[in-house]
Amino acid sequence: MNTPHVRLGVIGAGNVGRAFVEMLTDESRQIALLDGATAVLDLVAVAVRDLDAARVGVDRALLVDDALAVAARDDVDILVELAGGVEPARTWIETALRRGASVVTANKTLMAEHGTELARLAHENGADLLYEASVAGGIPIIRALRTSLAGEKINRVLGIVNGTTNFILSQMTSEGRDYAEALKEAQDLGYAEADPTADVEAFDAAAKVQILSSLAIGTALRGEPISREGISAVRSVDVEFARRAGYVIKLIGVVERVGEHGLSRRTHPAFIPVEHPLAAVHGAMNAVFIEGDKSGPLMWLGQGAGGAPSATAVLGDVLHAARNRVSGRHDVPFSVDDRLQSVDAGELSSVFYLSLDVRDEPGVLAQVAGVFGRHQVSIQSMEQSGFGREARLSFLTHEVKARDVASTIEDLAQLASVDSIGASIRVIDGGVA
Amino acid sequence: MNTPHVRLGVIGAGNVGRAFVEMLTDESRQIALLDGATAVLDLVAVAVRDLDAARVGVDRALLVDDALAVAARDDVDILVELAGGVEPARTWIETALRRGASVVTANKTLMAEHGTELARLAHENGADLLYEASVAGGIPIIRALRTSLAGEKINRVLGIVNGTTNFILSQMTSEGRDYAEALKEAQDLGYAEADPTADVEAFDAAAKVQILSSLAIGTALRGEPISREGISAVRSVDVEFARRAGYVIKLIGVVERVGEHGLSRRTHPAFIPVEHPLAAVHGAMNAVFIEGDKSGPLMWLGQGAGGAPSATAVLGDVLHAARNRVSGRHDVPFSVDDRLQSVDAGELSSVFYLSLDVRDEPGVLAQVAGVFGRHQVSIQSMEQSGFGREARLSFLTHEVKARDVASTIEDLAQLASVDSIGASIRVIDGGVA
Repeated sequence: MNTPHVRLGVIGAGNVGRAFVEMLTDESRQIALLDGATAVLDLVAVAVRDLDAARVGVDRALLVDDALAVAARDDVDILVELAGGVEPARTWIETALRRGASVVTANKTLMAEHGTELARLAHENGADLLYEASVAGGIPIIRALRTSLAGEKINRVLGIVNGTTNFILSQMTSEGRDYAEALKEAQDLGYAEADPTADVEAFDAAAKVQILSSLAIGTALRGEPISREGISAVRSVDVEFARRAGYVIKLIGVVERVGEHGLSRRTHPAFIPVEHPLAAVHGAMNAVFIEGDKSGPLMWLGQGAGGAPSATAVLGDVLHAARNRVSGRHDVPFSVDDRLQSVDAGELSSVFYLSLDVRDEPGVLAQVAGVFGRHQVSIQSMEQSGFGREARLSFLTHEVKARDVASTIEDLAQLASVDSIGASIRVIDGGVA
Repeated sequence: MNTPHVRLGVIGAGNVGRAFVEMLTDESRQIALLDGATAVLDLVAVAVRDLDAARVGVDRALLVDDALAVAARDDVDILVELAGGVEPARTWIETALRRGASVVTANKTLMAEHGTELARLAHENGADLLYEASVAGGIPIIRALRTSLAGEKINRVLGIVNGTTNFILSQMTSEGRDYAEALKEAQDLGYAEADPTADVEAFDAAAKVQILSSLAIGTALRGEPISREGISAVRSVDVEFARRAGYVIKLIGVVERVGEHGLSRRTHPAFIPVEHPLAAVHGAMNAVFIEGDKSGPLMWLGQGAGGAPSATAVLGDVLHAARNRVSGRHDVPFSVDDRLQSVDAGELSSVFYLSLDVRDEPGVLAQVAGVFGRHQVSIQSMEQSGFGREARLSFLTHEVKARDVASTIEDLAQLASVDSIGASIRVIDGGVA
């Protein structure tokens, strides 16, 4: 039998691009590729920003500096976009899709913002658009959602999808670091950027929630922003309180069905019970925990970033696209469930942790308790720790609406006896027996 | 566009069969099936053992009691075998494959013993043979290994693939139960059979190791038995020692590359570091932890048994087979790496835990230490706990060969001062940062 050839053009030679090209040209892997894909993968071009500076382990004749030209080349069957950012990546991808080439990308920003219309464009042109590496790096979660779990109704997704914040929170938990120290350590190790905003304020996690929700689970709700809270308000006293109460604090991304046609999509720090599998996701690891209607709980854990793990995900997508090419088909995009309505995060109920620094004076607790009571926020437990003329009050509420917690905090801030109000953190229910 | 129809015949209406048929006929799911598979799935027959006793939620006109006839029917495109056991399941499956029908099965015993030749038969007849539910129930691990990780070299697989033993060990760990109590509890809850041998002596886990190794990773080594140790010798004192040393005891299945062309396949109890993700797999849950060459560590966790979770896996396979049918293709089976040689478990080195009950007399420790020394088994740490005229000695060794530990134990058993020798348990290296 004549083994068909599938031709690849790659854009981008950063960590992921270099690792991908290296995997592709590693002879011992070539055998597996042949078996798995029943096709020979030919690399025909690698677009780099600077031809002179490029350090890619391929024949230099393959290097070009015109990415758009690679996307437009007739002999590129699969475009592998590993440059990132919205433009010009969007133009490259549209160019390739319009001429019927398939696209594999790791671009979370682009997929979060324009994934739904790009998926439609791919389908209209009989091509695949695959983006496994855009969420949770090396973890093959998107393919699992789209194939193995295609027949399953997924009720809730809880993801630890940002390695930087998980590293910071893990260091605060296991080493007793405060937030600033742990952030500095993450920066020194290259896990966090000099400006850490995208990670610690959960913009990165929110983009991944968007992709998981709209592309992997088929619940597109464009125009509806993801509710987003980061970790910069989490203090070591919160971590310590969580530990004593049997929890660890994690930044999680959530996609959750609410009632018949409601959907909540949000990111926020959360108290996770220590016996929950997500509590054991340490350091810069990522994990996605799913509660399926029939499958029950399922979790995937792995490296969320890094050149080689992400390149593994890219390679998996390329093999899949190559198989589809050879058999003349493409994946059908998930349909959007138009009945789904976004549920405001404020309307959702949860147990909440909150803590206040107050003056240690008679009557303060009564004032504070009065504010909680006025907003129907009932208290499950309270812990007071004194230090000099101040005291810290830490509360776990019963199940209350997030909106009521927010207005409680607003009113508490008006009290003269309240010096500062810390993070309010949801407690995630449900472990796995 | 005319939506093609794919016709299913089901054999078996136990827990998994009933849950599968229920999913298939649930109207709200039918929509997802159409989208995911671009085919309508028609159930044409369900073979049951006893027509009068059958409690399957389908039109009774679909029920038949001749399973072989269902396998042979020309209008069954996909045979779903959920009866279990080697025969007659093997005959049914061969019958379906020979006429080019695809087969989806949850039958671990059959796949462990005859999976390689059945996969070849499927390929020769242009059909699929899919068996996701045969390992780790609802966890979509096999598809992930065969698709997303198709381009990846997997160096080690550690699996908690038997829910019964994980439940027993979890109860011993978290509730302080002894082995007999925990086994009784598992039996009362229906997790363990009246005769628990298949679970506690790791026959079940060994079958799953065989499938993971030969079918999912492509390393068939037929005729070579899986090295097998169960958990019946694990005592609560061992669990307690592990806890103090920072470990939990789990029964694991292992597929491990050794050197260039060596492969070790085994099941045994192991000390798992508490910070390892596998340590957080509680109760009857299953998990598969993989160390890939490029992907790094990856773990899947979920329900390893139960009707609905396993039926989810069966449904995922059916959708995949249906898609393949519609596009006129089938999966290519993994090739066998003929260069791989089975490595004897005795040749592998590990840190070992072992414990002895000895008479608390002068000179006993010297005698015991002398036996260790003669077999080059060097001691990392020792703990003595006395009780009356007896003492328990618990050891952690340095890295030593399993064979040397075995011969040490043989010689220790000859000492008059040694009353009994407990389980020898390997310590698994490597956490996940």
